[in-house]
Amino acid sequence: MKDNCIFCKIIKGEIPSNTVYEDDNFKAILDIAPANKGHVIVLTKEHIENVFELEDDFAQKIFPIVAKIARAVKKTLRCDGVNILQNNGTAAGQTVFHLHIHIIPRYENDNELLTWEAKSYEDGEASKLVEELQKNL
Amino acid sequence: MKDNCIFCKIIKGEIPSNTVYEDDNFKAILDIAPANKGHVIVLTKEHIENVFELEDDFAQKIFPIVAKIARAVKKTLRCDGVNILQNNGTAAGQTVFHLHIHIIPRYENDNELLTWEAKSYEDGEASKLVEELQKNL
Repeated sequence: MKDNCIFCKIIKGEIPSNTVYEDDNFKAILDIAPANKGHVIVLTKEHIENVFELEDDFAQKIFPIVAKIARAVKKTLRCDGVNILQNNGTAAGQTVFHLHIHIIPRYENDNELLTWEAKSYEDGEASKLVEELQKNL
Repeated sequence: MKDNCIFCKIIKGEIPSNTVYEDDNFKAILDIAPANKGHVIVLTKEHIENVFELEDDFAQKIFPIVAKIARAVKKTLRCDGVNILQNNGTAAGQTVFHLHIHIIPRYENDNELLTWEAKSYEDGEASKLVEELQKNL
């Protein structure tokens, strides 16, 4: 637990939340500023800042829970689709620096959230980048 | 493997790709229409359409690989942040119906991708929704 972390306070129950799911490792709550109603965030109970700090044995626990909640969101909201989003760093839209995964119900033509204008690679640029990425794996 | 699935063809090597990482379960490649250069997608080797079809024992393999590649992306691109995004359904922006996870390098002020205008709940609406979600878990 980290002082002054709003998600740590929610996990300790010091700040109320609409809790959808809870187990030894995670607490899933309704996002208070939802992209659409039924937008859930899954919080790690341990204060982990982001994906870069995540250890493998803990990382493997994440997606089964996320998938379980995504199925419940789809069934409950009868939405057309679901985005699963996890932001790391201010530049990526992370506003609370405690690892969390967004599960966002989506509807046909609901809006243009989560889109981008595609960039492109110069000749040879992609293969050079692959080499660098492989060195850093 | 599914006929006429572009990602199955990439996995079989019938369509070339810039492969960053490969193991028994996943193949990670550069997205050909990147949100930013170095945008990687992690494909399941098995043809699974989306998160709703995912089984727990397979689901647990996903995040350790995603985290490993996210760390390599950050180190290689020296980016300020990273988004991890997984889209399910056309309404959520899924264009290839074979499960894949986006790993997107981000930079301060790169653009406004992956944002939304927050909605809000009426009185009592959130707690009712939580009850419904819990029934469907």
